[in-house]
Amino acid sequence: MDKQFDPDDVRFFSGRSNPQLAEDIARTLNVPLSSTHFSRFSNDNLFVQLGDSVRGRKVYIVQSLTPPVSDHLLELLMMLDIAKSAAAREVHAIIPYFSYARSDKKDAPRISITARLVADLLQTAGATHVMTMTLHSPQVHGFFGVPTDPLTARMEFEAYLKAKGLDAKRDLVVAPDMGQAKSAVRFARSLGLSIASADKERVSDTEVRIGGMIGRQIRGFAHAIVYDDEIATAGSVTELSEVLVENGIQRITMVCTHGLFLGPAIERLKAIPQITEIITTNTVALPPEKVLPTMTILPVGHLFADAIRLNYLRRSIGELFTFAEE
Amino acid sequence: MDKQFDPDDVRFFSGRSNPQLAEDIARTLNVPLSSTHFSRFSNDNLFVQLGDSVRGRKVYIVQSLTPPVSDHLLELLMMLDIAKSAAAREVHAIIPYFSYARSDKKDAPRISITARLVADLLQTAGATHVMTMTLHSPQVHGFFGVPTDPLTARMEFEAYLKAKGLDAKRDLVVAPDMGQAKSAVRFARSLGLSIASADKERVSDTEVRIGGMIGRQIRGFAHAIVYDDEIATAGSVTELSEVLVENGIQRITMVCTHGLFLGPAIERLKAIPQITEIITTNTVALPPEKVLPTMTILPVGHLFADAIRLNYLRRSIGELFTFAEE
Amino acid sequence: MDKQFDPDDVRFFSGRSNPQLAEDIARTLNVPLSSTHFSRFSNDNLFVQLGDSVRGRKVYIVQSLTPPVSDHLLELLMMLDIAKSAAAREVHAIIPYFSYARSDKKDAPRISITARLVADLLQTAGATHVMTMTLHSPQVHGFFGVPTDPLTARMEFEAYLKAKGLDAKRDLVVAPDMGQAKSAVRFARSLGLSIASADKERVSDTEVRIGGMIGRQIRGFAHAIVYDDEIATAGSVTELSEVLVENGIQRITMVCTHGLFLGPAIERLKAIPQITEIITTNTVALPPEKVLPTMTILPVGHLFADAIRLNYLRRSIGELFTFAEE
Amino acid sequence: MDKQFDPDDVRFFSGRSNPQLAEDIARTLNVPLSSTHFSRFSNDNLFVQLGDSVRGRKVYIVQSLTPPVSDHLLELLMMLDIAKSAAAREVHAIIPYFSYARSDKKDAPRISITARLVADLLQTAGATHVMTMTLHSPQVHGFFGVPTDPLTARMEFEAYLKAKGLDAKRDLVVAPDMGQAKSAVRFARSLGLSIASADKERVSDTEVRIGGMIGRQIRGFAHAIVYDDEIATAGSVTELSEVLVENGIQRITMVCTHGLFLGPAIERLKAIPQITEIITTNTVALPPEKVLPTMTILPVGHLFADAIRLNYLRRSIGELFTFAEE
Amino acid sequence: MDKQFDPDDVRFFSGRSNPQLAEDIARTLNVPLSSTHFSRFSNDNLFVQLGDSVRGRKVYIVQSLTPPVSDHLLELLMMLDIAKSAAAREVHAIIPYFSYARSDKKDAPRISITARLVADLLQTAGATHVMTMTLHSPQVHGFFGVPTDPLTARMEFEAYLKAKGLDAKRDLVVAPDMGQAKSAVRFARSLGLSIASADKERVSDTEVRIGGMIGRQIRGFAHAIVYDDEIATAGSVTELSEVLVENGIQRITMVCTHGLFLGPAIERLKAIPQITEIITTNTVALPPEKVLPTMTILPVGHLFADAIRLNYLRRSIGELFTFAEE
Amino acid sequence: MDKQFDPDDVRFFSGRSNPQLAEDIARTLNVPLSSTHFSRFSNDNLFVQLGDSVRGRKVYIVQSLTPPVSDHLLELLMMLDIAKSAAAREVHAIIPYFSYARSDKKDAPRISITARLVADLLQTAGATHVMTMTLHSPQVHGFFGVPTDPLTARMEFEAYLKAKGLDAKRDLVVAPDMGQAKSAVRFARSLGLSIASADKERVSDTEVRIGGMIGRQIRGFAHAIVYDDEIATAGSVTELSEVLVENGIQRITMVCTHGLFLGPAIERLKAIPQITEIITTNTVALPPEKVLPTMTILPVGHLFADAIRLNYLRRSIGELFTFAEE
Repeated sequence: MDKQFDPDDVRFFSGRSNPQLAEDIARTLNVPLSSTHFSRFSNDNLFVQLGDSVRGRKVYIVQSLTPPVSDHLLELLMMLDIAKSAAAREVHAIIPYFSYARSDKKDAPRISITARLVADLLQTAGATHVMTMTLHSPQVHGFFGVPTDPLTARMEFEAYLKAKGLDAKRDLVVAPDMGQAKSAVRFARSLGLSIASADKERVSDTEVRIGGMIGRQIRGFAHAIVYDDEIATAGSVTELSEVLVENGIQRITMVCTHGLFLGPAIERLKAIPQITEIITTNTVALPPEKVLPTMTILPVGHLFADAIRLNYLRRSIGELFTFAEE
Repeated sequence: MDKQFDPDDVRFFSGRSNPQLAEDIARTLNVPLSSTHFSRFSNDNLFVQLGDSVRGRKVYIVQSLTPPVSDHLLELLMMLDIAKSAAAREVHAIIPYFSYARSDKKDAPRISITARLVADLLQTAGATHVMTMTLHSPQVHGFFGVPTDPLTARMEFEAYLKAKGLDAKRDLVVAPDMGQAKSAVRFARSLGLSIASADKERVSDTEVRIGGMIGRQIRGFAHAIVYDDEIATAGSVTELSEVLVENGIQRITMVCTHGLFLGPAIERLKAIPQITEIITTNTVALPPEKVLPTMTILPVGHLFADAIRLNYLRRSIGELFTFAEE
Repeated sequence: MDKQFDPDDVRFFSGRSNPQLAEDIARTLNVPLSSTHFSRFSNDNLFVQLGDSVRGRKVYIVQSLTPPVSDHLLELLMMLDIAKSAAAREVHAIIPYFSYARSDKKDAPRISITARLVADLLQTAGATHVMTMTLHSPQVHGFFGVPTDPLTARMEFEAYLKAKGLDAKRDLVVAPDMGQAKSAVRFARSLGLSIASADKERVSDTEVRIGGMIGRQIRGFAHAIVYDDEIATAGSVTELSEVLVENGIQRITMVCTHGLFLGPAIERLKAIPQITEIITTNTVALPPEKVLPTMTILPVGHLFADAIRLNYLRRSIGELFTFAEE
Repeated sequence: MDKQFDPDDVRFFSGRSNPQLAEDIARTLNVPLSSTHFSRFSNDNLFVQLGDSVRGRKVYIVQSLTPPVSDHLLELLMMLDIAKSAAAREVHAIIPYFSYARSDKKDAPRISITARLVADLLQTAGATHVMTMTLHSPQVHGFFGVPTDPLTARMEFEAYLKAKGLDAKRDLVVAPDMGQAKSAVRFARSLGLSIASADKERVSDTEVRIGGMIGRQIRGFAHAIVYDDEIATAGSVTELSEVLVENGIQRITMVCTHGLFLGPAIERLKAIPQITEIITTNTVALPPEKVLPTMTILPVGHLFADAIRLNYLRRSIGELFTFAEE
Repeated sequence: MDKQFDPDDVRFFSGRSNPQLAEDIARTLNVPLSSTHFSRFSNDNLFVQLGDSVRGRKVYIVQSLTPPVSDHLLELLMMLDIAKSAAAREVHAIIPYFSYARSDKKDAPRISITARLVADLLQTAGATHVMTMTLHSPQVHGFFGVPTDPLTARMEFEAYLKAKGLDAKRDLVVAPDMGQAKSAVRFARSLGLSIASADKERVSDTEVRIGGMIGRQIRGFAHAIVYDDEIATAGSVTELSEVLVENGIQRITMVCTHGLFLGPAIERLKAIPQITEIITTNTVALPPEKVLPTMTILPVGHLFADAIRLNYLRRSIGELFTFAEE
Repeated sequence: MDKQFDPDDVRFFSGRSNPQLAEDIARTLNVPLSSTHFSRFSNDNLFVQLGDSVRGRKVYIVQSLTPPVSDHLLELLMMLDIAKSAAAREVHAIIPYFSYARSDKKDAPRISITARLVADLLQTAGATHVMTMTLHSPQVHGFFGVPTDPLTARMEFEAYLKAKGLDAKRDLVVAPDMGQAKSAVRFARSLGLSIASADKERVSDTEVRIGGMIGRQIRGFAHAIVYDDEIATAGSVTELSEVLVENGIQRITMVCTHGLFLGPAIERLKAIPQITEIITTNTVALPPEKVLPTMTILPVGHLFADAIRLNYLRRSIGELFTFAEE
């Protein structure tokens, strides 16, 4: 009954942060990825030119907020502005990794809830709809004034782990921080596993201390599945891993949606032999030299493609949606 | 050096939800609480008339979103609109209990993140600044497009509990739900106590199931301080209390900022003899018949008064502020 | 030439104020009325969940602002917000009875022109188009920042009365108040009758005094057709009826679009035997016990259905429109 | 206790429609009226330059929307824009005669509620507050999104008429149209007189037909005080006057706030000898040749000056305010 | 693949400034030009009624801002407002001559950048897209908050001149002012001619002085093609022409997009026999008595029609677009 | 008469682009420059914390958009957002060098008028007033929706050059591009010198070709003062210099407001011995190794300080203002 997905009705563009994922999405949808010209003026101003007419079209712009974050954000804002000013009918910002979701509250005086600021900037620049994946906290959804769909990779992780075989006596899910405990609970529940949550105290942006009753909770388990939304320098998860090992855990599986692996991350992860597997997705483009043998990168381009198609065909995308459960 | 607080420069009004708290705030600031006329038209429309000129003044309107929530919210919106239309210079919405903060995420399809909606409605109606206390999650702060100060009663609770004497071997803090674990951690830390967090599974709005490793965590402790943001029908905290008692806890102290105690709450709390004290505040006006002998109601009017005075005098109110720690 | 009305392109929902009228509209249009789940959280917050996907659809939400007005208004705002946030293409607020139209001017200091406030709130919540019926004054139309169609039931009243037979020597139209005189004039003119207008002085919200030259104007007529926009507690129309009877009127027909009949209304109307017929519509859902034998309730669902279909098919709805004449 | 009116804190400017009234206002307030340079570019574009710095000041711009209305409106919009862009602290539009208030409803399809449009344009251009006098209907107040004070000249008319002596047996107030009946009722009531209202049928913009029961109502009275908001070409009031005279009225006093007296107005009024007095105000600047011997022009500059001063001093201006009663 | 241009999907209306051009556009597109009723109320308020339903349609309103500019601008704003309020799907303002583009900077204190103000007013009134031609400076494009397409007539001028034959030794392009030099350079380049630019000093709005090195630059050339965006009273171009003749130029061709020819323009141009041709377009409707024998009026209706069709069919209109080169 | 500049009423902060200039401004005004903490999160997100309370204060944030432009822009947006959210009374963005002013028009299809985008982003983030210096074109002023003051360094250049002695027979001003000719004319006029303008054809962002009649215009002059708004890689000015030298110019003085001197700029300038002096300002912070012996850096901190003080004291800042003449 629904009209079909019409490739002529849409235009896909990619910023410079993750062109491979943009390609995956376009290929899955069987639409071309239009070219975009990027350069810098001699005064360091960015220059962007979309390579295809967007007039009256539904425009999709794919950009992850990976480093250099400021450049990638500005690039995205300019691309949205071009689409809006060139009379696009709809302007969809597809932001697989929305880095500023971490700045979601005022935990010190005179700082910025930058996630809200960026949501407002995206709307000012012209976004009429946002798609993203696994926001740091589910409340960030409410920062957006335009319809927003936060997708989830949880089902991918679950399917992958279940296929490997799970044992509720041996395996348990560990939340590295109370702030992520709620979503770890849901994850554990759907795997049929128990959940323990560490009490991480942040000493600085890169240093943390793990305390609390984590020892009591994990006693008797052999395999910990550490579940987090993102890993940047891997400081807190490796700190946690050491505590887990001290308390009897023999094997650790890391699961995170956004695998940035910046700075000392790779070295830190390699230094703990009990970390036998690291499962992440391709929301962040990883250079080959960072892909460890222990890494499994689950592709998520098809999830974005499905969501875009369902949205285009006006079908519910509930199953791909987070629903604040992650 | 700062100019003094000028009573003639401000106007205070109270909605009908908690006039006593509004009186406390005004009295502390040594300003009169202007009268307001409330009535209903014969077709059930609300009618509100402010009893004092607001032209060019800084106007403060105190209203808690207690039942009947819809009437109290509409009343507040109308009062804000009157102040704005009558050319007030600033319009401060003082909302000690912001009930809709609980609707802060989309945990099911096709529902409303009503906390964001209400934040937008307040701005449309004319609020130029919002003051509130202990939002359900710190991210709700980011839903507001106008400057917002979420105060906290945590220091009041800490001072009260410390004065009674604490023992880190005997007492521990319990978060009734992983979603509240983060703020319970901070609370526990400043009391020098350990923290355990239950894994509450919500079966329906009024029914919950407590599971997880709470048993392992509380073993050996005798006195649990259950720390939550609000208690409505007391379903989950009494459910939790039973689990605590089954696992060896001998005495329970309930701490919550917003004590609504609706429906079966009082009966449920009375039914568990181990709950020896319930500590709350007066953000919600409680009828005398609901005030149990075990209840301690800490007044917070002076906190709002301090914040209003500091804001008026352009001083930092950081110490009264939540900073996402609660 | 126009494309046909496509049931798959639209979604109809009803608030809790007048589900029967919503059913009528949907049935006339041959579209299903999607279900909606309503409940309250334990803290009295409303909870609403739309029962069908609205993504990319034209969404119609039917809600009359009948008592409890605040709950029904909040419910409507939440439903609009859900539709907007869930990426509906258009969001139509169908408000058969817009109670706050009566608060359309500042007739006392420091009150709210609540009709404008509510119009703004509806827009903030997401309404892109409003349909309503017989606003208290035609100027209220200008309060809305989105396209708005105020329909009229006047033609229904006219057809009904003409079918019963009219006599310009015997019958005249009476406006109960100078503020409604203008629309009563138009009504009288299209019936070919004379018009008299009373000079109502409002003593309080529920009490009025009728004065002026009404006596002179009605002399010689036997049957008065009192024409008003709404009847709530029926205070002013029964007061007027007594004056009419004192001045020689033998039979009174009441005509009003919005028949609320609240509080003492039914008793008051029954107490005046000369009121032999009360003609109203179903913009307000009336419980069976309030339906007097003298009442004729003209259905208006087909008018809303026609307007929705014409609007959908991009045809003029001029004939169903008020054009400030009522 | 209030700080005094500080002439250095304000800046007054006048458009070209009514500089004399602007002078009156400024002189009453003892502030200078800053000069403004007006000219046209060779392509007919308007050019306006304010003659005094407005940075950080409270700026008041006086402009009546008299013919040529479009030029005067554009001139006003440009002056507001200049003040806003030049960093004025407040921008007050003082519009003694707001001509477009007459376009306040949609009484035909596909027309503009221009009063709302102009209210929005004023806000876009930079007005933060509007003062005006006697809007065509009190609901127009609700069209403004910024605080608006519609003043009234009613008390001036009352004082003047009472000083001349009134007799409730001889004199009555006549509303020329049902749409103005409500405000005529209030006027009559405060004069202690009866009220009659004509039923004007508009044949075209300049031609009307008076019908209805006006004859019955005025029988026995000798002196009619016709009360209207504005007189433009005087078509309807002279038509009405003829009907009044035919029905026994011997003397007619015209009262109107906005006396435009355009086109054939003066001739029409002179042609009816029973019109012995025409009372109006100076919201519209009248050329000397239009000032008939029968005219009394009550100055209203002091009312605007009072309202501006009270507003500046943050006192209530309730007494000068219309309150929808006119 | 694109769907065809559907005449039933669009509605065309014309203001009163240039109905002939509107007719040209509609005829080229093979759509009817709907009628519009214009009149004035007796108080000089404008009254506009669109003659055809716009509900759900793409509406195009053609209006040049020619004298009387204020009336034509207000007329346009009202037409936009009608379309928006009557639920048009898109509202396109087609403004062939946007007079206020000349007020594009603040070259004196306390004046208005009226081009930005008017752009904002158009958006407030309801324009969702603007089409115009040859803005005074390309930056004015950035004043619009809605998608805007500034078309150009440059290719028409080029084709016409090339057809007449050009000689790079004899002919050169002259910019009458440094501010227009940039676009004259582009024009000269595409004609393969040299460029000279005068240094015009504006003494008053209608008087200018030409100085600088124009003499040096034009030495040796016989035929000057003076290229400007608009000619109003022709003061500066005739002043320039005299300087050109004094410096040896024997023949002058005037080229301007917007030929207003107001006031003394025609006499001035006739007074210089060396001006042998004046080439302009029909963005401004010229009365027959102003059409000199030396004038060539290139029609541009087909350019607007092409742009409208391409925009409707969602094709790029890049070739018709100015791209800041004019 | 004005109240004095109150250091306690204001707060000054600096971004990381030009702290020395911010220091100069603060020192001139005799106010402290509050500290600001800058860092990056491990995922490359920026983190900013203002070091002093801004509640109710007038806040000034100084940031030049120098490389890395994206980081400096984001930093500025976050600082504005912090000030707004922390209830500052006014938020002034002081942007000495607004790099994106160069992206002021659409000279190719599907690009962004980024200057307008950035102006909108600044407003969204919270700027209530903008101060800047020498925008690339005067029209960019109109891109800002908040009051904006573009200052000028022209008087500094004039005073400096006049002090060195000028000779109208020997010296002339040269505009490197027709787009800058207008402001060069004003500059030349106030120096009493002639003006020549080159016709620069941009081959790529870093490569240009100089053509046109520049040879004819400069013949006979010995000293060229090249006047431009900014020099980045110095490609076009060195290209121009070669043409000047080929045509007989013996000495070249470069004048530019914004001296970025990026990439090959220093080498290019050193390679042309005829460039004997380069005069610029400190809107851009220059590392010591880039300061050539031929450079004269005129400080402009006092100009910003004066403008801030005059604005604070509500005096006209006309003399410091550009007025589109530069």
